[in-house]
Amino acid sequence: MFDMISLKGGLENVDGFYFDGVHSGVKKKNNDLGFIRSDEEFLISACFTTNKFKAAPLRHFLKYPKNFKTNFILLNSKNANAMTGEKGIDDIDEIFKELGKKIKLINPIMSSTGVIGQRLDKEKIIKGLDKFDFYARNSDAVAKSIMTTDKFKKELSFRVDLENGKSFNIAAICKGAGMINPAMATMLCYILTDANIPKDDMDELLKSSIENSFNAVSVDGDTSTNDTVMLISSGKKDYDKQAFKTALNMITLNLALMLVKDGEGSSKVVAFEVNGAKDDKEAMKAAKALSNSLLVKTAIFGEDPNWGRIASTIGASGVECSEESLVIKYDDVLVYDINHPELDEEREQKAHVIMQKESFKISCDLGIADGKFCAYGCDLGHKYVDINASYRS
Amino acid sequence: MFDMISLKGGLENVDGFYFDGVHSGVKKKNNDLGFIRSDEEFLISACFTTNKFKAAPLRHFLKYPKNFKTNFILLNSKNANAMTGEKGIDDIDEIFKELGKKIKLINPIMSSTGVIGQRLDKEKIIKGLDKFDFYARNSDAVAKSIMTTDKFKKELSFRVDLENGKSFNIAAICKGAGMINPAMATMLCYILTDANIPKDDMDELLKSSIENSFNAVSVDGDTSTNDTVMLISSGKKDYDKQAFKTALNMITLNLALMLVKDGEGSSKVVAFEVNGAKDDKEAMKAAKALSNSLLVKTAIFGEDPNWGRIASTIGASGVECSEESLVIKYDDVLVYDINHPELDEEREQKAHVIMQKESFKISCDLGIADGKFCAYGCDLGHKYVDINASYRS
Repeated sequence: MFDMISLKGGLENVDGFYFDGVHSGVKKKNNDLGFIRSDEEFLISACFTTNKFKAAPLRHFLKYPKNFKTNFILLNSKNANAMTGEKGIDDIDEIFKELGKKIKLINPIMSSTGVIGQRLDKEKIIKGLDKFDFYARNSDAVAKSIMTTDKFKKELSFRVDLENGKSFNIAAICKGAGMINPAMATMLCYILTDANIPKDDMDELLKSSIENSFNAVSVDGDTSTNDTVMLISSGKKDYDKQAFKTALNMITLNLALMLVKDGEGSSKVVAFEVNGAKDDKEAMKAAKALSNSLLVKTAIFGEDPNWGRIASTIGASGVECSEESLVIKYDDVLVYDINHPELDEEREQKAHVIMQKESFKISCDLGIADGKFCAYGCDLGHKYVDINASYRS
Repeated sequence: MFDMISLKGGLENVDGFYFDGVHSGVKKKNNDLGFIRSDEEFLISACFTTNKFKAAPLRHFLKYPKNFKTNFILLNSKNANAMTGEKGIDDIDEIFKELGKKIKLINPIMSSTGVIGQRLDKEKIIKGLDKFDFYARNSDAVAKSIMTTDKFKKELSFRVDLENGKSFNIAAICKGAGMINPAMATMLCYILTDANIPKDDMDELLKSSIENSFNAVSVDGDTSTNDTVMLISSGKKDYDKQAFKTALNMITLNLALMLVKDGEGSSKVVAFEVNGAKDDKEAMKAAKALSNSLLVKTAIFGEDPNWGRIASTIGASGVECSEESLVIKYDDVLVYDINHPELDEEREQKAHVIMQKESFKISCDLGIADGKFCAYGCDLGHKYVDINASYRS
């Protein structure tokens, strides 16, 4: 047994780290450069994009030996340092050479987000380093330093009280809107904890937690060159695996839902729940197909309970299904089963009212076996087109 | 050697068939019921949707033994007869029972397009049969009877002159816009020929021809419950495999490009050519990922030569690639290679001008091996949202 208490603020609730964010001048205004560091080296577990064109900071990270420890994460926004070749990696090393004159570095790492295909403005970034307060614990400043097209700052923290009277803390900052816009906005997430979690558990729990959170949400189905989720531990407090797993899943799912809510031009968050699939993998395939379908997304924008698009998308996803066993509901309103293929006026009206809400659930029971998965998506309307058709700026 | 001559009109250029279209009253106005038939039974080769939820007319077709011959294809629009269970198939049989009182039927087949999840209006359709002129050769009327959201009629015909002084004809009608909108518009295509083509060649050539035409175009990446392409031969004239293959590929590619041009709300047709892939399969994967990417489609709508979205989509598609060997061009303007990652103002301006055209090519050389594929897609703008967000009507 354990208790999870939601805390005000962000990273400052976790012991053992310093963090700050400043304006270096790469962005016209607002913070564009930040760091997370510790006086001692710390364990880190990272999950990166599956995109074959991994940005320079990811390839720089991957040059370190497995299970390396670091004491410094440098963050920047407005430039992704992606598609910049070996020079992109050299740029990072040059910046760390300068940073090393100011503070002791052990295996420093960098994360970048922003436009693809431009070299980092090393001069501005190196000058910006002078503005850092290396002993600040300013979660707001660092969270803002990674924002790009985000409409709001994404920060969360919890204290977990264990049965033995001890406790640990876990907190995160995250950026991303338009999951994922490779040109202007890619997702970055840093989860800090003071729990004394072993490295193997870090890797295992982070990976499984991402599967049902960041990998279950979609704004436009594109994946980026820079996507990064990191779990970092100072190891200063007690640890309990079950409690930590629960807290971590809570953090990643809530941050993921914030990303959808902040999805470029989206006005609704929809849970696509698929049950009764052949197995969980097929349920995931069908649920993600629904959250990515343009026709489903535009029907949601139009608040049209056009279940034919839901059925057709499931059929097209390649999973085992049949029209005899399929059941589709919008929240608790049945819109299709084999005995009710035609929506009567009453059920149509009820479904239409549900679709007017800011968030609702579309559930599909395939009636095959026990596989299930829930994906999260949003509508696609005119604002999405406006944001993404506009020239890079 | 052979000559292909483009002919005026449509199906009337092919010997051995009758066809007509009428208004039965299922649509408020315009033709909604049509047929293609022959006095003798004819060979037919059909390719259907891969969607698991195959509409009733497809399942009705598939009940006939392999290589069956038919003498009658009944066509209707506005109702897809999809997700209607066994009753949907019974409805077809009932309609054919009535039709059989008017004309001799051998293994009659039906094709439907329109809204999913509604039973056919048998009464109106059966009454509509009375309006048919079974000896008409009215290509315009039958082509119009299958239109739904199409902005223009799709008809094509060629005469092929063979070396021996003989000739055959091939002609087609097609419908589809919004490739594929499962609720209102799914693609149907009927290719008629009088060439004496063996059944094995029909199956082989139709399948390979679809791969590089209908399966290479995308408006919104969705596939439908009713997609059907049929090749029908009266066998009355000479046949040459190479000539027929060329003519068939020409017909299907041109019809497919018409579908993209008529894509819901689209204003540009873009060829996505991928060269230098590990193999043709990987080239197809990358090319289709480009034609389906929301971020690529909105950048095309915005006429923004944002090549980072092209690169990122290729990287996300899972094909073998590297930023060292990748080359991206818009028509003949280089926008990315490892030595030119940053677009200078001159090339940016040139690429922007290319994107203002109604059609252009984005080519990506992956520099791995010899695999190649060309997919065709369109932009995504406000009109797409308007059409697809609007309530079924």
